Amino acid sequence: MSFIATPQTMHFPDALPLQSGASIRDYHLAFETYGQLDAERANAVLVCHALNASHHVAGVYAGQDDSKGWWDNMIGPGKPVDTDRFFVIGVNNLGSCFGSTGPMHPHPDTGAVYGADFPVVTVEDWVNAQARLLDQLGIGRLAAVLGGSLGGMQALSWTLQYPERVRHAVVVASAPNLTAENIAFNEVARRAIVTDPDFHGGHFYRHGVIPKRGLRIARMIGHITYLSDDLMNERFGRQLRQGLELKYSTQDIEFQIESYLRYQSDKFSDYFDANTYLLITRALDYFDPARSHGGNLTRALARAQARFLLVSFSTDWRFAPRRSREIVKALLDNRRRVSYAEIDAPHGHDAFLLDDARYTGLMRSYFESITKELR
Amino acid sequence: MSFIATPQTMHFPDALPLQSGASIRDYHLAFETYGQLDAERANAVLVCHALNASHHVAGVYAGQDDSKGWWDNMIGPGKPVDTDRFFVIGVNNLGSCFGSTGPMHPHPDTGAVYGADFPVVTVEDWVNAQARLLDQLGIGRLAAVLGGSLGGMQALSWTLQYPERVRHAVVVASAPNLTAENIAFNEVARRAIVTDPDFHGGHFYRHGVIPKRGLRIARMIGHITYLSDDLMNERFGRQLRQGLELKYSTQDIEFQIESYLRYQSDKFSDYFDANTYLLITRALDYFDPARSHGGNLTRALARAQARFLLVSFSTDWRFAPRRSREIVKALLDNRRRVSYAEIDAPHGHDAFLLDDARYTGLMRSYFESITKELR
Repeated sequence: MSFIATPQTMHFPDALPLQSGASIRDYHLAFETYGQLDAERANAVLVCHALNASHHVAGVYAGQDDSKGWWDNMIGPGKPVDTDRFFVIGVNNLGSCFGSTGPMHPHPDTGAVYGADFPVVTVEDWVNAQARLLDQLGIGRLAAVLGGSLGGMQALSWTLQYPERVRHAVVVASAPNLTAENIAFNEVARRAIVTDPDFHGGHFYRHGVIPKRGLRIARMIGHITYLSDDLMNERFGRQLRQGLELKYSTQDIEFQIESYLRYQSDKFSDYFDANTYLLITRALDYFDPARSHGGNLTRALARAQARFLLVSFSTDWRFAPRRSREIVKALLDNRRRVSYAEIDAPHGHDAFLLDDARYTGLMRSYFESITKELR
Repeated sequence: MSFIATPQTMHFPDALPLQSGASIRDYHLAFETYGQLDAERANAVLVCHALNASHHVAGVYAGQDDSKGWWDNMIGPGKPVDTDRFFVIGVNNLGSCFGSTGPMHPHPDTGAVYGADFPVVTVEDWVNAQARLLDQLGIGRLAAVLGGSLGGMQALSWTLQYPERVRHAVVVASAPNLTAENIAFNEVARRAIVTDPDFHGGHFYRHGVIPKRGLRIARMIGHITYLSDDLMNERFGRQLRQGLELKYSTQDIEFQIESYLRYQSDKFSDYFDANTYLLITRALDYFDPARSHGGNLTRALARAQARFLLVSFSTDWRFAPRRSREIVKALLDNRRRVSYAEIDAPHGHDAFLLDDARYTGLMRSYFESITKELR
């Protein structure tokens, strides 16, 4: 049994300038906090989320036993990121679909649902919005900022946008930018959504429909790339869904892996917002701190003052270990303090969300060392 | 300038029993031949094609300079597979959309277009159909059967279905079966097609529409998996399509790789048949000669009498070298004569269609050795 988590909301009336040149005002951020802020306001840990996650990082909602937070195995009382010691903050990003202002909400000027008119948000914009939330919570400097995948990009960006506000950055299964192949997979997912006749140029809400076909395809592609080839072979292999005989059909489910993908993608299309999918994959595509430094990551990371822990997983082909090593190298070039672990795990990109004794043990020691520092 | 190729068609009135239990009769096969059959009828080489190819293997059509065959760099007068020495046969498989009988043709009983009612065909069925064609051409035993990818699966299957009719089998960038990940990618592509509202359960012909949205998505997925991550980075990287400034759009093209994928997929959706895509990806999924031997590939390949050349490419993650090595091992377990080359090439799965001096040199020597044998 986990502890009870309580979602909160903060309203921000003032306009937040965005990287695109646009701005957004009168927005809400959904967030949760676990543990107690200490008297020095020094033990705060911000957790940044990836594509399909939210502010609900740990614990369960009262009366909903199956509502466990997405990183509940890592964060909580007595867990590697120990909420008996740290004040942990989870925040849902702008443009997401789990409580913070997003494309499904009304524009404050017109009262009409944003839809495709929701401004394009970037990792840097999210970090700015998170910083404003911390301001409201009275937190100046973070003991740590922590995230996996796209969340790791936010953690890295924090150290560049607010170097003086981050003591430690824990960047898990992440990358300094997406490869062409990553962008390509995102683009296929986006095309599947955008070309679904139920998308209506992003204004499907007013038509009372949802581009579920596109969302399903997007989710299937995501799922394949989150898992490793080995894990899929071990878990599904060439196992048939029913019996031992082939049905010889091009449209019916034949293999177990097909059944799994259809089930997962159906579930996803029931709750995820299509415009959010576009926005978040674009934020992934755009993130590239080296871009304004002529592609030189070492120069881009010179601003960072934090100490770093980077973690990658051997079978993660979406955010491969070599991408983490690029960040490590650039930080070392700048003589920053960096720890790096490459965990030999079979689970592909998903490994960052799963239990692995070496991984959780490492996180536990790292956060224990932060505790000692804070005393 | 290449030589002039001339497509031919052969009619088969008799029913061909299919693996599914169904059969197909009154069908046509489109084929081409290059070179001359020798007096002993011993120099025939059959070339089997993969997903998006046809009987038009080499040469150009009269008056159409841009109609080069898909393996023209490998096959022709003086080429590695030298049509001055070999009688080369290319055949379009049943269910394809380049001339042989397929889902877009009428059922002989009803006169109505097959559509989704075209029978499911397997690699084994294709090989049986090819064998009948060879019978008609008066060819008993092949000097070699040759194919890449799905074509390699057909070449391998030839040695099991007609061991006495194959002297050499050249299996390039292939596998003894698909992995769960391969099946998963095929399934996403199929779902994209089947859930396109213009698919009409496979009977779109009678509605005068084409499920282009689904075909585009299917092709994009294919394209990504045919290329290597490295090659995509080298060719496209994070290059923007226009200028140096981001446009901040979720739907417009921003990166060069997006532009490439959209262009390729548009082109594909103009000529490829949606039902054919389903049929051919299913044939890939189903191929698994070890299946009827309890998963034991060694036992499955015991029937093979041919000598083998297997070729794989280091960066091919769709049909990885280790899959070719499984075949090599199973053949060696059976004390068959096997040559194996793993070519260090950056082009991913597509490498089997491209020029690489080591690869073409190897093919040339192998086919020269066959020539010597025939003398």
